[in-house]
Amino acid sequence: MAVQTMKDLFLHGIQDVYYAEKRIVETIPKIAKAVDSKKLSEALEHHLEETRGQIKRLEKVFENCGEKAKGVECPAIDGIIKESDEIIKETKDKQVLTAALLAGAQAVEHYEISRYGTLCEWAKLLDDDDSYKLLSETLAEEKAADKKLTDIAQKDVNRKAA
Amino acid sequence: MAVQTMKDLFLHGIQDVYYAEKRIVETIPKIAKAVDSKKLSEALEHHLEETRGQIKRLEKVFENCGEKAKGVECPAIDGIIKESDEIIKETKDKQVLTAALLAGAQAVEHYEISRYGTLCEWAKLLDDDDSYKLLSETLAEEKAADKKLTDIAQKDVNRKAA
Repeated sequence: MAVQTMKDLFLHGIQDVYYAEKRIVETIPKIAKAVDSKKLSEALEHHLEETRGQIKRLEKVFENCGEKAKGVECPAIDGIIKESDEIIKETKDKQVLTAALLAGAQAVEHYEISRYGTLCEWAKLLDDDDSYKLLSETLAEEKAADKKLTDIAQKDVNRKAA
Repeated sequence: MAVQTMKDLFLHGIQDVYYAEKRIVETIPKIAKAVDSKKLSEALEHHLEETRGQIKRLEKVFENCGEKAKGVECPAIDGIIKESDEIIKETKDKQVLTAALLAGAQAVEHYEISRYGTLCEWAKLLDDDDSYKLLSETLAEEKAADKKLTDIAQKDVNRKAA
């Protein structure tokens, strides 16, 4: 896809996070199963539901752009998920693995915080108020999910792994 | 590398960001050259200097661990950088490309914010006060770099690209 205008770039960004969210939906159940913390697996399952809602929001943003929803390959999310797959293979201790996977989930959240933060700015610039509103809702959810993970790391997972 | 303890996991994390910082040092000059914003290229060059200092800090952390400094492949940073390489090929308009590369730089910063945030927590847990201090300094620099990029996006780059 050749990118000429900010509208093209915005669409490319939406396709990137659409692909990322779909990969995240596939990945969360595997991670929730591998961790040894009830709080963390509950938080992950809650975020799985949120992610499904975020995909629906992106589909509305595609509609606002007059485009069909479709993803483009996102090597960044593929790389972040690959690191978690590798750590599952390398880590024998269950509590240490749980700390590692929690950290991987925070890397995912931060990738999304950065991309949705940018997409909100670009939607504003394109005067697409409805997309801005939808993307801002998702951005707030990603920030809250990251905070919750920090809280679980500090109060539960890291202490048990030490 | 088999990971058994939090110390192993901490070391693995340090090797991951060490590799990432080295890739960032290689990549920044290319990005600084491709962008069409004096403010942005200056900010990137400033961050290149900071990154060199961050590598030196990591080398001290390796010393604190009694280990030789070495990187392990980090598919996450490779993926984020690959996205910027692709966008350079796909984007013809210089101002639009600048907005895209600024967003890519923020994705890099957020990856680092997440990893250094985690490494600070783990250093605390391992009672490694000196490493905690070193990693906290870098974390503060990454957060400041991200804020500066947001500022340049809002006041300069995005407006010109629209």
